[in-house]
Amino acid sequence: MKLLIDKKGKRKIFPENIDKDLHTHHGVIKKEVFNKTREGRIKTHNGEELLVLNPNFKDLFDNIRRGPQIITLKDAGFIASQLGISKDSKVLDCGGGSGAMTYFLANTAKKVISVEKKKKFAELIKKNIKMFGFRNVEVINKDIKEGIKEKGFDAINLDLPYPEKKLSVIIESLKTGGMLSIYLPNMTQVINFLKKAEKYESLKKISVNELVRRRWKTGKGIMRPKKTIPTGFIIILRKIQQN
Amino acid sequence: MKLLIDKKGKRKIFPENIDKDLHTHHGVIKKEVFNKTREGRIKTHNGEELLVLNPNFKDLFDNIRRGPQIITLKDAGFIASQLGISKDSKVLDCGGGSGAMTYFLANTAKKVISVEKKKKFAELIKKNIKMFGFRNVEVINKDIKEGIKEKGFDAINLDLPYPEKKLSVIIESLKTGGMLSIYLPNMTQVINFLKKAEKYESLKKISVNELVRRRWKTGKGIMRPKKTIPTGFIIILRKIQQN
Amino acid sequence: MKLLIDKKGKRKIFPENIDKDLHTHHGVIKKEVFNKTREGRIKTHNGEELLVLNPNFKDLFDNIRRGPQIITLKDAGFIASQLGISKDSKVLDCGGGSGAMTYFLANTAKKVISVEKKKKFAELIKKNIKMFGFRNVEVINKDIKEGIKEKGFDAINLDLPYPEKKLSVIIESLKTGGMLSIYLPNMTQVINFLKKAEKYESLKKISVNELVRRRWKTGKGIMRPKKTIPTGFIIILRKIQQN
Amino acid sequence: MKLLIDKKGKRKIFPENIDKDLHTHHGVIKKEVFNKTREGRIKTHNGEELLVLNPNFKDLFDNIRRGPQIITLKDAGFIASQLGISKDSKVLDCGGGSGAMTYFLANTAKKVISVEKKKKFAELIKKNIKMFGFRNVEVINKDIKEGIKEKGFDAINLDLPYPEKKLSVIIESLKTGGMLSIYLPNMTQVINFLKKAEKYESLKKISVNELVRRRWKTGKGIMRPKKTIPTGFIIILRKIQQN
Repeated sequence: MKLLIDKKGKRKIFPENIDKDLHTHHGVIKKEVFNKTREGRIKTHNGEELLVLNPNFKDLFDNIRRGPQIITLKDAGFIASQLGISKDSKVLDCGGGSGAMTYFLANTAKKVISVEKKKKFAELIKKNIKMFGFRNVEVINKDIKEGIKEKGFDAINLDLPYPEKKLSVIIESLKTGGMLSIYLPNMTQVINFLKKAEKYESLKKISVNELVRRRWKTGKGIMRPKKTIPTGFIIILRKIQQN
Repeated sequence: MKLLIDKKGKRKIFPENIDKDLHTHHGVIKKEVFNKTREGRIKTHNGEELLVLNPNFKDLFDNIRRGPQIITLKDAGFIASQLGISKDSKVLDCGGGSGAMTYFLANTAKKVISVEKKKKFAELIKKNIKMFGFRNVEVINKDIKEGIKEKGFDAINLDLPYPEKKLSVIIESLKTGGMLSIYLPNMTQVINFLKKAEKYESLKKISVNELVRRRWKTGKGIMRPKKTIPTGFIIILRKIQQN
Repeated sequence: MKLLIDKKGKRKIFPENIDKDLHTHHGVIKKEVFNKTREGRIKTHNGEELLVLNPNFKDLFDNIRRGPQIITLKDAGFIASQLGISKDSKVLDCGGGSGAMTYFLANTAKKVISVEKKKKFAELIKKNIKMFGFRNVEVINKDIKEGIKEKGFDAINLDLPYPEKKLSVIIESLKTGGMLSIYLPNMTQVINFLKKAEKYESLKKISVNELVRRRWKTGKGIMRPKKTIPTGFIIILRKIQQN
Repeated sequence: MKLLIDKKGKRKIFPENIDKDLHTHHGVIKKEVFNKTREGRIKTHNGEELLVLNPNFKDLFDNIRRGPQIITLKDAGFIASQLGISKDSKVLDCGGGSGAMTYFLANTAKKVISVEKKKKFAELIKKNIKMFGFRNVEVINKDIKEGIKEKGFDAINLDLPYPEKKLSVIIESLKTGGMLSIYLPNMTQVINFLKKAEKYESLKKISVNELVRRRWKTGKGIMRPKKTIPTGFIIILRKIQQN
């Protein structure tokens, strides 16, 4: 993938090679010029300069089409850090819809298995994995409540409705000492989940969290907080008994 | 390293092997028993069972001795995600004191160079790197304002006073398209930094952020937010011009 | 004034008497019927029922036309409580634009003097005072930096740019022990103000505040925070020396 | 009551007259000197000067002994403003324990009736009312679920467990168009209350709120948020049907 940045810093992602000339707000770029430029400056037909770069992980992440369900980068970063993901981790991600958490986990972990019920979404995840260039992700198109063969996960993330109904299957797949994260948009769901989860003796509740990102508007004489947009609640648990 | 967890989920980190018997709140563990147990249950002299596990990254991170300067896991996760760190990234971390951000970056990146002015802190970082088992970190004991030979970093993190004074050196080391994060505890410092930073045409300000973690206290009939402890402000910039 | 509420709880304020029939979303109300109904149910021409009530203070406050400058009810309530306003208080309000803080103070205090530089705004405040029915407010159309004759105020509120330039005049008008509140939208202004204010030995800084109202969206299975819209910073000071 | 302020702005409340000499951190004040000084400077035996003032409402409010149940000034101010309290309002306050909300309401309203189940607390409220000097408050020592004779309240505040069980009694006492506020520390209680409250057709839910006060630490080069201490959730409703 290639990242184009204009002088104001506006970004856009393109494939490595294109087969038609590129029409941008700043003018036309010939396909031959585009395809041979790997990094550096590129000129449009009316002489404006754009920057061609290798996109970083955030550029690619921001490029995923956003639906109502996509997890924000701040929540993804928080979950991954609370799960203790490292380069040795084997992780299971369930129900991410657009797969955002899968890509975030794959960015650090050794191996990620992404389980998604809807075929359409599973295909989308596979497509996105190619865009990111990941080779450590396996996508399985099934309902997680039926369970999966693979066991001994270091961490599991659940981003789906009624996670409490998947707990027995999930615990079985989690290694002793393994971490579990649950992402839920409503406090009512959090309360329901915790009521059920406390019956599983092997699960220890670590924390119930809400992560608020306050962005500040800055400028000449200006420094004030912007609107704060809430996202979801994040529950962290740990399996502290052997099966 | 080994992680011991008791029945309440309380954690403690130990070396792989010990040369004296271990005295815990739950009783004594013979050194021979401790050293031969890699994972699983272990019994103290009065019959209590503890769990022995491989610590995950968060276990090790939480184990670093906390000074006033240590960055929290939530801020470290946010910075790393905003910097777009991936397994290919070459990253520079300056002035982290206890090195917490260095470890967090090393957990995902290909290569991290950590520059620390104080010899004592540089030694501490080297020691901690051994504990984490990282092989992709180089610690340099110098003042970053003197600059470093290595160039072309994908991302740089500055967690030190007066970051505005290091900007020209930093920009030189950053590749075009590279990301820069600044961590500052006071809004006054943020304002000072931004006033200086806007003079560097190659730097585009991406965002000024504050990340608030609201933990919720939960229990039977209980669901209310806990105290919120503020940490610092995080500025994200990008180099969008060539040197 | 009269308040009309429909079955969904939607409110609208009208004068006590109207001289034309009223056309509402729920049908037409004859002016004779409207004028003779002081409280109770009223029927539109197509049989729908509306509730006629005496508006309370909040109904009237919400009815003021909102410009970019209007202070929110939450901030007004916070300021009034921090200023220690009671039924005996004599208060000065400077620069409120639409006068929202003046009405809020007048609702509790014995006497409020409202100083507004722009003639147009001063006239608007006078008109609104009639709507609220206040008899304890005097509006003065002048620039506060020229000072006012009246002294010995129990509390003063400043909601105008560069409040630091009005401090010497303000302190003179404030009684010993009197309270002072400053409302500012930007943190940069807060920092400028505090730098100047600390030179006045008679002023003790009590607190620098930001009041965040988190509204929750509720419904069947729904309980999550809504967007949070920031307002301004509130500085509270006290005069603790005699002139 | 008299308020003494030292040079650092530290406050302390005393009765109008004392019968023993006053021993302060700043030295001794003779009772004769104290009693005859109504306002102005007073000297201790070692020559230090203190300021003697009439306390304002906030001074007296801050002087109430704080138990675990006391409502903060910010929440009290928010509730009063949402209830639309004015100088004409007749208000009912139930279960305030230390009566803090009663005093806050009495500070603006025409008449407040305070209902408190526990005799000990009812006596405390009566004592505090004297301290404030209110003449518009009646304290009734009974359980509100038994109902009270007085009807037609403009606003009612409930700060007690299981407010949903008192709703039928409360609605009867509230005038049509009247406002109702519920103060609850736990989200679980909020959910329970709303589930019951939606069965009362005459009640319209206006808002579910959480008010967060962020205080900022300021000083030379210092400007950062302090710890944020959560308080409670505030539900606002309105009676929009006649009995």
